[in-house]
Parts: sequence; structure tokens; C-alpha cells
Amino acid sequence: MPRILRVAAAQMGPNQRADSRAAILARMIALLEQAAGQGAQLVVFPELAFTTFFPRWLLEGAELEQYYEAAMPNPETQALFDRAKELGVGFYVGYAEKTAEGQHFNTAITVGPDGSVLQKYRKVHLPGSVEPRAGATFQQLEKRYFEYGDMGFPAFYGPDAWGAPVMGQLICNDRRWPEAWRVYALQGMELMVVGYNSAAYDPNGGDSEDQGLRTFHSQLAAQSNAYMNACWAVTVAKAGDEDGSGLIGGSCIVDPNGRIVAEAKTLGDEVILADCDLDLVQQGKQKMFNFAAHRRPDMYSMITERTGAEPPKR
Amino acid sequence: MPRILRVAAAQMGPNQRADSRAAILARMIALLEQAAGQGAQLVVFPELAFTTFFPRWLLEGAELEQYYEAAMPNPETQALFDRAKELGVGFYVGYAEKTAEGQHFNTAITVGPDGSVLQKYRKVHLPGSVEPRAGATFQQLEKRYFEYGDMGFPAFYGPDAWGAPVMGQLICNDRRWPEAWRVYALQGMELMVVGYNSAAYDPNGGDSEDQGLRTFHSQLAAQSNAYMNACWAVTVAKAGDEDGSGLIGGSCIVDPNGRIVAEAKTLGDEVILADCDLDLVQQGKQKMFNFAAHRRPDMYSMITERTGAEPPKR
Repeated sequence: MPRILRVAAAQMGPNQRADSRAAILARMIALLEQAAGQGAQLVVFPELAFTTFFPRWLLEGAELEQYYEAAMPNPETQALFDRAKELGVGFYVGYAEKTAEGQHFNTAITVGPDGSVLQKYRKVHLPGSVEPRAGATFQQLEKRYFEYGDMGFPAFYGPDAWGAPVMGQLICNDRRWPEAWRVYALQGMELMVVGYNSAAYDPNGGDSEDQGLRTFHSQLAAQSNAYMNACWAVTVAKAGDEDGSGLIGGSCIVDPNGRIVAEAKTLGDEVILADCDLDLVQQGKQKMFNFAAHRRPDMYSMITERTGAEPPKR
Repeated sequence: MPRILRVAAAQMGPNQRADSRAAILARMIALLEQAAGQGAQLVVFPELAFTTFFPRWLLEGAELEQYYEAAMPNPETQALFDRAKELGVGFYVGYAEKTAEGQHFNTAITVGPDGSVLQKYRKVHLPGSVEPRAGATFQQLEKRYFEYGDMGFPAFYGPDAWGAPVMGQLICNDRRWPEAWRVYALQGMELMVVGYNSAAYDPNGGDSEDQGLRTFHSQLAAQSNAYMNACWAVTVAKAGDEDGSGLIGGSCIVDPNGRIVAEAKTLGDEVILADCDLDLVQQGKQKMFNFAAHRRPDMYSMITERTGAEPPKR
């Protein structure tokens, strides 16, 4: 029996710092309802979807702590979970997690159509810096505000109603690191879901990569890693001008051949959908990318033995 | 001082089994001269450039052995090396290697403008099978005819006249395996050169991947791995209808942003060129892909511990 999963990417426009949590959640519920109305079974939201991208500022104390969630769901997010369960729709969503022990992570969860959390993931590839850059209007302080993810790359099964796909989750910058995709693919991953907040330009005016090039990079990473790992991929932006700093859009759904089958056209709240035939992954997994037949791990040891690049001796 | 290297991809049309070695070499010298006439300093030829792609047949004895080179250069290839040295041009070329000990490898070398071999590489990711497929008109017997490359992924310096780039070499199928690019990038690789012979369709009529999709896959792998490893990439085909089996073209030169800057338009002998600003790799290597700052090798252990995919427990 064919395993066709109707997936939606729920791209979000910007969440301004002045927006209320309730107003942002109402937009997310509207996107969820729109996707469900079109038959979506799984809706993918962005990274840190409930708030503005706060690592762009140097914050402390209560001003910083307000962005973290001590539980998920919690009173400020419960309505999304309730509505999804009513509609029988699952979702992926990113948020800032604070544990009972006081640890902080950049986290995502995938929730099943029954409202249960299928799997949590904590972002491994944190960009930015610990110390603020002197004189910069905008920071990128993910390495200050979050600890490195400590769960590895845990693949999991989606529910039978989705065709029980082996799924993986990444967050933003992770999607540019082929190691992350590969560890999931080595667990048989068939469907990757990814939320992101990616700068459209250097908000401090420092470089030459424009919005078009950055969107190209984002889609290139999704397309190639979907191809090279023989999986479907759904990558979803928070986009547009958020508190004076631009974020790319370019949310897309990619097939196991690396082709974009659905793509957001705006920088605002926008739902795109695709029917993902999960068995299309078999062409790649059984032939070109039959790992058991063709990988040569004895030649890859440098990947785990070395962190930074070391040039050869002259 | 800027480091600008003018690189040519010397795509070759098909080498028929009936073609003489001398006729093929004359075509290669003509491509070399055409590239040198346009100022190329490095000319990249395809995989197994001196012959037809013989792993498509089940052969044995002298009929098979004729395709291997016991030395490189040798009397049948010396004229290419001599002409390149006269012109002061370096080149990459692929060939079937037979060692003094009787080992066989699918091999490539890069030769400097002074005629010296800068580095040899032996293909790690051999596709195909050891045993012939019963009833098939065309085989893919690389695993039968070659041993797995035993040199790892040895990065090396190009000569000072090229700006002393850190270079890497891959062969055909290797380019689809992100591990191979990453091991080179962990040695600071700035310029990757790759020759290939890639099927344009299943010559036995077995599948649905057409020539356009296969060319897209080839370029997607080159573009994304150049971007994710912050390097230039030159990937070069033997193309066209070779002995009744189709090969894709699509040779291209890719910048460190993953953009194609030059691309072959035919399936025949064709030279394309680009001026590669080697310092463009620094944007990626110092920021987004600063490996020392951002890689998390402790999370990648599955890449070397596992060969095939193993699904999670239910």
C-alpha cells in the first residue's frame, strides 16, 4: 500500500518583540487550521516559533528568561496543542527550552496527531558567539544562551497513520552540516523536518551575501542533503523584517531526488503543502546510496578525530 | 596579492571501444592545447579518460588487461605529458592503474606545470558489483575490476604558480558522498577536481531516472559540497553515447557559494574555463563553516562506527 503523507510547511512572518505571545499563538493556530483544512497530516513550524529571535540582543535576567519555556506545552502554548489534537494533525515546532535543572537548549519537538510528543531534539550546531561583538547593533548569541544539544540525532517513527516513516529533526544551522543528516540517514531516516531563522543580510552592514544568495544556500543544503540521504525534507522559515533585522524565507518541501516540490513565495505567514510518497526514498536507499554496499567508514576517521581543519604539511 | 587560478574543464565525448589509443590521445592533446590557448593553468580531464568505460562489460584475460596502465606516463600517454609540460599547463586525469604487485585501482593524478605528479588518488567509493548481473546487456563491474582505494583522501598543495591552493581529488561516484569532501575539507581543501563517467539512463532499460535528472544530481552534488566545504569544484564528464550506453555531460566549475560559473553545453569534446579566485573560500571557512568553532565531532560517531543504515527500535 502506498505511504502518502500530506505535509505542510507553515512559514511564519516576523514575530516582533512587542507582539504578545497570545497574538503570535493565534497566528500559529490560524496556519495550523489552514493546513488542516487542506488535508495536512503534519504541519512544520519554524525554529523558536513562539517569540522573536532573541539571540540578536545581549539580554540578562528576567528580560532574557521570559523567552524560555519551562514546560511544553504550557499555559501560553496549550491552545496550539489542543487545536492540533482536535484536528488530528501533528506538528513540529521549535522553542527555547529551560530544564528543571536550569539548562537551556534550542529545542524542537514533533507532536503526533494524538497530542503526544513523539521525539524531542536539541540543536547541536549552535552558530554565533558566547561573548557579544563590541559595537555591533545586532548580536548572534546562541552560543551564550544555549548549551549544545546533548541528545545526538535521535531518529524516531512517525505514527502508523502517517505510514510510520523514520523521521529526523534538525534546527536551522544544523541543516548546513552534512554530518547531521548522515547520522539520521544511518538510522534509515525517510523524512527530515527543519525549522529556521536565517539572516537575510548582515544586519550590521558587514558583508556581501545578499538575500537571494542566502536563500539559495538554504535551499541548496536542503536539496542536496535530501538527495544524498535519500529522504524527504521540509525546511521552514520565520521570515521577513523582525525587529529591524531581516530573515530569509524560502521554506520548501524537497523530494528524495533533491527537487523542490513546494516553495513559499512570500516573507510572511504562508502555508505550502505536498503529498510525500514515502516509498520514493527506496530508489536511493537501495541503489546509489545503499550504505551497506558502498560506504567506506574506515576512510572517514578524520570526521570524528578532528574538529577544525589542519592543512597538510608542505 | 589575489590568487586567481584559470582552470579548464576538458569534457570529452565518448571513447568508443574501437577507437585507437592514439586517436583518443590526440583528442585529449587538442583539448589541452585549446585550454592552454585560452590561458588555462590547470586542465581537468574525466575519469578513465584514455579508454572506453570498460566496466560495462564482463571481460577477462588480455581483453581486460589492455585497459590498465602499468605506469603513468607510459609510451601510449607520454605525448600528453610532454605537450602539457611544453605549454606549462598542469592537468588532472583518470586512468585504470595496475601496480607492480598486480593490484588494480581506479586512479587519478594531478600533474604540475613542470610535468611532476603532484598527488595520486585511488577511488574509494566504487559503485556496481563484483558478480555480473545475469541477463543484463550492460554491467557495472567496478567492484570486480578495482580494489577499493587505499590512500584515503590525501590533500596536497598546488604549485606556487597556481597560488599554492590546498587541493583534493575525487573520482566519479565519490562526489556524491559528503564524507569524501569533508575529509578533504578537514585538511583545508580549497579546490576539488573530479572526473566522472555517469550513466545517462539505465542501459538495460530498468528505471525511471532520465538524463536531465541524472545531470541535475551530478551538479547538485558538486554545488552543495563546494558550498558546505567552502571550496571551488571542477567536475568533468566523459559524455555521450559510448558503445551503446549513454553518459551524462554537465561538466561544471562551481564557486565556494555553490554557484555554477561555467558549464558544458554539449555531450562532446568541449572546453570550459573560469578564473577561480581562491581567496573566495575564506568567507565560508572563517564564518559559517568555521569548523573549529562550530563542528561537534562527539555527535558524529555513528558515521565511522556504522556502515549500513540500522533503523531505530520500535
